[in-house]
Amino acid sequence: MNDPRIDELMEFVRIPSVSAQSAHEPDMRTCAEWLLAKLRSIGLEARLEPTAGHPVVLAKTPRDPAKQTVLIYGHYDVQPPEPLELWTSPPFAPEIRDGRLYGRGASDNKGQILAHILGVGEALAEGPLPVNVIFLIEGEEEIGSNNLTTFLEKNRAELACDAIAISDTGMAAEGYPTLSYALRGIATMEVKVSGPSHDLHSGIYGGAVANPLTAAARLIASLHDSDGRIAIEGFYDDVKEMADWERTAAAESPLQERDIARQAGVSELAGESGYSAMERIGARPTAEINGFGGGYQGEGSKTVLPAEAFFKVSFRLVHNQKPDRILALAARHFEKNRPPGIRIEIVNGHGGEPFAFDPTSAQGLAARRALEETFGRPPALTREGGSIPILTDFQKILGHPALLLALASPDCRAHAPNESFPIANFLAGIRLNRALLRGLGAAGARPEKPMKS
Amino acid sequence: MNDPRIDELMEFVRIPSVSAQSAHEPDMRTCAEWLLAKLRSIGLEARLEPTAGHPVVLAKTPRDPAKQTVLIYGHYDVQPPEPLELWTSPPFAPEIRDGRLYGRGASDNKGQILAHILGVGEALAEGPLPVNVIFLIEGEEEIGSNNLTTFLEKNRAELACDAIAISDTGMAAEGYPTLSYALRGIATMEVKVSGPSHDLHSGIYGGAVANPLTAAARLIASLHDSDGRIAIEGFYDDVKEMADWERTAAAESPLQERDIARQAGVSELAGESGYSAMERIGARPTAEINGFGGGYQGEGSKTVLPAEAFFKVSFRLVHNQKPDRILALAARHFEKNRPPGIRIEIVNGHGGEPFAFDPTSAQGLAARRALEETFGRPPALTREGGSIPILTDFQKILGHPALLLALASPDCRAHAPNESFPIANFLAGIRLNRALLRGLGAAGARPEKPMKS
Repeated sequence: MNDPRIDELMEFVRIPSVSAQSAHEPDMRTCAEWLLAKLRSIGLEARLEPTAGHPVVLAKTPRDPAKQTVLIYGHYDVQPPEPLELWTSPPFAPEIRDGRLYGRGASDNKGQILAHILGVGEALAEGPLPVNVIFLIEGEEEIGSNNLTTFLEKNRAELACDAIAISDTGMAAEGYPTLSYALRGIATMEVKVSGPSHDLHSGIYGGAVANPLTAAARLIASLHDSDGRIAIEGFYDDVKEMADWERTAAAESPLQERDIARQAGVSELAGESGYSAMERIGARPTAEINGFGGGYQGEGSKTVLPAEAFFKVSFRLVHNQKPDRILALAARHFEKNRPPGIRIEIVNGHGGEPFAFDPTSAQGLAARRALEETFGRPPALTREGGSIPILTDFQKILGHPALLLALASPDCRAHAPNESFPIANFLAGIRLNRALLRGLGAAGARPEKPMKS
Repeated sequence: MNDPRIDELMEFVRIPSVSAQSAHEPDMRTCAEWLLAKLRSIGLEARLEPTAGHPVVLAKTPRDPAKQTVLIYGHYDVQPPEPLELWTSPPFAPEIRDGRLYGRGASDNKGQILAHILGVGEALAEGPLPVNVIFLIEGEEEIGSNNLTTFLEKNRAELACDAIAISDTGMAAEGYPTLSYALRGIATMEVKVSGPSHDLHSGIYGGAVANPLTAAARLIASLHDSDGRIAIEGFYDDVKEMADWERTAAAESPLQERDIARQAGVSELAGESGYSAMERIGARPTAEINGFGGGYQGEGSKTVLPAEAFFKVSFRLVHNQKPDRILALAARHFEKNRPPGIRIEIVNGHGGEPFAFDPTSAQGLAARRALEETFGRPPALTREGGSIPILTDFQKILGHPALLLALASPDCRAHAPNESFPIANFLAGIRLNRALLRGLGAAGARPEKPMKS
C-alpha cells in the first residue's frame, strides 16, 4: 500500500515500547520522542512531561475561548510481546498481510491514537479546527497508569476541557461502529506460595510434606464454585444486576456467542451460569489466573517437591466494586484456605475502578452521530470487558466521562501474539476523528454525570 | 583432607552427567569412560556396553565357581541441577565444607557407588576376594532405567549371581546403619491442558472462555480429598495395610517426625490422615505435582488468558500397585474432571513397580551383620519413599532381591540444590563393602523369595 500514513504507523509500531520491562526503558524514551516530533510536525505545540515513571506526551492547539475543548487520550506503551515463538512475523517488525498490520501495539493503542493525530493533522492542513484539541498520550497504561492521576491533578487547569475522547476499545463486530459505555475495573495480585525451605526429593519426602504446587492449585480451585461464581466471601456485595435496556443491547449486539467462540478458537464457551457470554464479559466480575509457575519446567521429568510456587491473578470488577476491597477480600480468602505447612505472601499489583457513563447524554449522542456518519450505520452500545483504570480519574479530576469510540477489530489479538490492526479501521479512524470534532463543536458541551448503575 | 580417595570422588562429581538433558550427551560418555578407567585400574576386567540410550559400565573379577557371586549395582547419571541460583557452590564444581562434599550426584549415586569400587580395590590389593564381584553401573537411573531390562535379559548368563547389593538409599539418621527392605514404585505423567487457540486478553474474553490455568489447577485439586487421600477411583485397590512388625519398626526408627520436619525446613508436616509421617513416606502411595507452568512468568503483570498450561505429576506406589494401571486410572480421572471448553493431552513418563524383600532371610541377615560390624550397632529396618524401578527387574530376571545398604545422609538433598555426601559416610562405605563381601561369602547364597506384603 502506497500510503505514507501507513508507513508512519509502521514506524511507530517498530519501537518496542514495553512499559513493564525495565530493559525497554530507552525504547520508551525513543517512542515518546517520536510522538513529540510527530505532533509538532502537524502544527501542535507539544512537549514531554516527566513523571515518576515514563514521560507523558502533551500537545495542543492554541486555546480559543470561543470554542469547546476536546481532550484526546491514548497511550504509547505496549504489552510484553512474549511468547515470541508464537508470532508469525516478529512483534516489532510490523508487516502487512491481508489488509491488516501485524505487530505488538498495532491495535492497542498505536494504530488508534495515531489515527486521531493524523485526523487532526489533516483538518489543520485545511484550516482552523472546530474545537480546541489537547492530546494526552501516556506511557504507563499497560502497567496501571500509576503516575497519571498525579499528572492530571497537577495540570488540571491546562487540561480543562469540555469532552474527552478515547479510542482504546474494540468494535462489536468487524467494521461495526461501537460506542462502549462501560468498562470493567481491575485488581491484580501475585501470590507466592512456599513450603519446605528447599526443593525436596518427592520420593523421600512425598506424603509427609505439603507440596506448594498442590497448595497453589487448591487455592486457585477455591476461587470458583461449581456454577462458575466466585467463591470469595463478600465478592458480589457491590455488584448490581444489569438494567433491562442493557440486557437488550447485549442481546442485540452484532457480537454473539459464536463470534466470541470463533475469535477465541474454542469449541464451547464457559463461565458463570445464568448470563450470556456478552453479559459475562461486560457486566459480571471475574477472577482469572494470568500466570502460574513452580517446580521443574524443563524437558523430561524431575521428581522434585519444590520449595515454592507463584500465581498471578487479576480480578475484573463491575459497578461499585473497589479494587482495594476486592484485594483485601481475596487475601483473606487465600489465608483462610491456606493448608497446614504452607506459607503465602501476597504482593498487590495495579488496580482501577469500573467505569460507566450515559450514552443518551448530549456528548454520547454526538459521539453516536460521528460514528454513524463515518461507518454508515448507528453504533452498537456495549459494555466492555477490558479496563482503562484512568477513566475514573478523568471523570473525578477533569469532570467528564470519556467517550469510548472503538477502532480495534474484534479479533485484533491485543495482549497476545500476532496482534493486528486492519488498515481500513486505521483510515476510518482518521475520518472518525474529523467527524467527532465537528460534532462535538456543534453540540456544545454540557456537564455530564456518571450513569447510575 | 589429604586423601586421594576424596580427590577421586571430586573428579567423578565434576563430570556433569545429566541423563535427562540431551545437551549433556557428551558428558555422559565422558563419565562412563572415567568409570571404565577407574574399574580397570583396580584390576577388574571392564567394558562399556552400548544400549539404545546411555552405555552401561560392566566390570568383574574372573569367575571362580567355588565362590558366591555378588552383583553390585549403581548409576553414574545424575538429576538436572536446576535451579542453579540456589546452589552455594556450583553443582559441578565440588567443594568440601564442614566434612561434606557438595555437588550434584555427590550422594545420588556417585559417592555411594565409588565407595563400593574403592572397597573392592582395597581388598584386591591385599589378595583374592571372598566372593566373585560384578559391577553393573548404568547411566539412565534418573530417567527410568528404560534400557536396563533389555540389558539384563540379554546378559542374563554373564550376570548370573547369588546376591545383589545396592547403595542408593538414605540412612534413617546421620551415621545410623540402615537396611531398607522396601521402596515405592513410581509412575509419571505430564498433562497438557489447552483451551483457546491463542493467548487471549483476559479483560476482553475473561468470563466467557475457560482458562487453562484455572482448569489445570482444578484438575490438580481434584487429586486429593480433604483427608489427604487420593481421590482417583480405584487408586487404593492394590494397596495393603502394613503388618504389625512394620508399624513397630516405623515407630522405632531413629528418624522421627521432628527430624523429617527439620530436614525439610517446615514448621509442620502434612499428608494423609491416620498414618505417621514415616508410614506415609514408606508405606502409602502419593500423587505429587513436580512442575506446573503456564501464562506470564515474567516481571510485573500481564493480563493474559493463556492458550495452554502443563503440569507434571508423579505417583509413588506401594504393595501391588502397577504403574500402567495407575496411569490409566489417573487419565480416566482427569478426563472425567475435564471442564467444558478445555482439552487435555497426557504423555506418560517412566514407571517402576514397588519393591520389597524379607529382611529376615539369610542374605538379609548377612547384610544386617555387615552394617552392624561397620557402624557398631544393629541397623534400622526401613521402608523407603523413593523408587529404584529396576529392582523388580533384577528380581524377575536375575532371581534375587537387592540388598539396600544405605549410605546417603538423611539430609543429603538428593535431587535438590546443595546436594552433599558426608566424607565419613564415603569412608564407611568403603569399609562396609569389605564387611559385606566377607559376610556374603561366608553366609553362602540361598534362593530368596519376595516378601509377602
